[in-house]
Amino acid sequence: MAESTDRRKDRLWRNARLATLSENLPGLGVVEKGAVAVRDGRIAYAGPEADLPSSLASLERIDCEGRWITPGLIDCHTHLVYAGNRAHEFEMRLAGATYEEVAKAGGGIVSSVKALRAASEEDLLHETLPRLDALIAEGVTTVEVKSGYGLDLENERKALRVARQLGQVRPVSIRTTFLGAHALPPEANGDKQAYIDRVAGAMLPVIAADGLADAVDGFCEGIAFSPEQIAEVFRAAKARDLPVKLHADQLSNLHGAKLAAEFGALSVDHMEYTDEAGVTTMAKAGTVAVLLPGAFYFIRERQLPPVDLLRRHGVKIAIATDCNPGTSPLTSLLLTMNMSATLFRLTVDECIAGVTREAARALGILAETGTLEAGKWADLAIWDIERPAELVYRMGFNPLHRRIWRGK
Amino acid sequence: MAESTDRRKDRLWRNARLATLSENLPGLGVVEKGAVAVRDGRIAYAGPEADLPSSLASLERIDCEGRWITPGLIDCHTHLVYAGNRAHEFEMRLAGATYEEVAKAGGGIVSSVKALRAASEEDLLHETLPRLDALIAEGVTTVEVKSGYGLDLENERKALRVARQLGQVRPVSIRTTFLGAHALPPEANGDKQAYIDRVAGAMLPVIAADGLADAVDGFCEGIAFSPEQIAEVFRAAKARDLPVKLHADQLSNLHGAKLAAEFGALSVDHMEYTDEAGVTTMAKAGTVAVLLPGAFYFIRERQLPPVDLLRRHGVKIAIATDCNPGTSPLTSLLLTMNMSATLFRLTVDECIAGVTREAARALGILAETGTLEAGKWADLAIWDIERPAELVYRMGFNPLHRRIWRGK
Ligand SMILES: [Zn+2]
Ligand SMILES: [Zn+2]
Repeated sequence: MAESTDRRKDRLWRNARLATLSENLPGLGVVEKGAVAVRDGRIAYAGPEADLPSSLASLERIDCEGRWITPGLIDCHTHLVYAGNRAHEFEMRLAGATYEEVAKAGGGIVSSVKALRAASEEDLLHETLPRLDALIAEGVTTVEVKSGYGLDLENERKALRVARQLGQVRPVSIRTTFLGAHALPPEANGDKQAYIDRVAGAMLPVIAADGLADAVDGFCEGIAFSPEQIAEVFRAAKARDLPVKLHADQLSNLHGAKLAAEFGALSVDHMEYTDEAGVTTMAKAGTVAVLLPGAFYFIRERQLPPVDLLRRHGVKIAIATDCNPGTSPLTSLLLTMNMSATLFRLTVDECIAGVTREAARALGILAETGTLEAGKWADLAIWDIERPAELVYRMGFNPLHRRIWRGK
Repeated sequence: MAESTDRRKDRLWRNARLATLSENLPGLGVVEKGAVAVRDGRIAYAGPEADLPSSLASLERIDCEGRWITPGLIDCHTHLVYAGNRAHEFEMRLAGATYEEVAKAGGGIVSSVKALRAASEEDLLHETLPRLDALIAEGVTTVEVKSGYGLDLENERKALRVARQLGQVRPVSIRTTFLGAHALPPEANGDKQAYIDRVAGAMLPVIAADGLADAVDGFCEGIAFSPEQIAEVFRAAKARDLPVKLHADQLSNLHGAKLAAEFGALSVDHMEYTDEAGVTTMAKAGTVAVLLPGAFYFIRERQLPPVDLLRRHGVKIAIATDCNPGTSPLTSLLLTMNMSATLFRLTVDECIAGVTREAARALGILAETGTLEAGKWADLAIWDIERPAELVYRMGFNPLHRRIWRGK
């Protein structure tokens, strides 16, 4: 059998039901009796099979037997590249250990920083791949990956290089984010301002020049950095044309959402304590709200993100795993959808849009992926389900039939 | 290569870390540098490799490379055999539909009854297998399966026959439970007493005579059956030497736990509203508490089961998926462990014992499985983890390396 050198397959996926997520259609943009034509890794046509252009009629045909096709899933907020895990800390907490006892035993984010710094690039890749593979097994075709456990130039670069490598060793698109302003490294001796000056003035310029980051992120919180410190990092990012995003208002309201939106942020993430002023500023800026129910669940938060405010003001909602060793050791976007529905009361349509179209928008790549529309990458997930709601309703079940990344 | 006719393999699994769950050892019964010898499908030895009896030294050896071995997992409470699903009902509720609107659209348990009655035995088996396979993929070697969507003799028997078939088409042990007293069928026209008389007097005797059920269960709740009605079913079970168990005190306290314990129940399940009198009666009777965090999470309960009371009175705690289409469409015991820790604050040891030793106890089969001890079935799960806590800490990740059922 002939196969093109890049192993992409030009094909017609027919006899399918499509959730196109096209904004020109209501809800999930459903097309019954649909077909998706793929050429050179891109979608050449997605719509009713009856309306297929004759120029595409000669493509190799694959019968989907009535299965559903959605855009490939997108995890738009992860800390996937880390070393070790924090299961021991989790165990100690359940056994009643205090915060001090956990810290004494080497727990907390510092333990992840130490582990990442000690790991070779090769080990780090090797440790990360099973997590990436778990995501991929559920139809994920794009993953955002943040740094933020290196906290010095060398180790932040190492983490971002590993993130880029993920996209070379697996058929998946990786978007990298520099999160130097994640936490204070031990050697900073409590001097947050000096560290932020280093992030903005020394680390960010090198990482930008190396092309290692597609965006810049920060953690705006009492236990992390102040709005003014975050603004300093954002100014440095903007000066290098890097889009920004922010971990904001997770545990308290420091008005991080508003700040980020004023910088034209791609997204504001977490948002449990965001108020209406923050939401309206996001609406004006077109900033996406990224809700992270895994962390909400895992650390047993009570304060719900302002979902009704987001709806009322037309802020787009994405959802993500926030996969990280401390507060969300979650590697399932299907479970993320269930948590978003169960805990945040997102509708089925909001959940599915949140891991496809809106997740693409949160990454600034909606022109390239996130919906089934001609011209975009042929990133598809084909599901053994009778209706899309099953993707959200089940817990711990993977109905993926087949996944296609860029036509392959 | 020679292989015995029943395809069982006599082998020595060496260079492993064991969580034996033996009650003669503290905690998880950990053995570092351990080995498990398997002969004729049973454990011939489990303990320090250095102490391996010389009679077993000639077995074929497999190097576990330091991996952990636990007993095969046991899901001791499921409604796995059902037809259709209730994703549409879930979707309607999220979109704000009232209970009446869901009922009008054909939702609720009645929809599962209709679907099961309409399904052929073959279809029912075919629909159930993917759920069973999801459990098996995570190292499950024993599954309890209840009837309770047939609600007449013919369809309850059909469901139980399908449950038995599961154990013939997959390498897994199945324990069946007759749950005729699950809900009132539509044709009963609201007459609970007449239906219970039929369950106890007509259905149960036939099912018992056919050997289709290993135990008898009921649902004691305002929306289901009264304690007196449950007692009638239990008396019929006891008259046929069938052990009993009960869905009790999930939504209110009807003193179901106490009632069941007075009948010497194997387990009381759910227990959110059980009081101290119920717990002490269970302690005296040796009745196991089966906690079901999937249902608690999915229907967003607030009332926590009385974990501290259970600990104080020495009641053994098992946990299970409660896999069912209405209130817990959950097919992951790993996620069940995480939910038990996160939502119910069970410790890591309690979670792991809850899906092994205590789950076996809840099914009355602790003499045969549930721990790594000589004489029991060689039901093993081998894990790619550094410490047992990882089984509980992660969400949506399956670190199973290999699963062995009765030595195979
Ligand atoms: Zn994060
Ligand atoms: Zn149940």
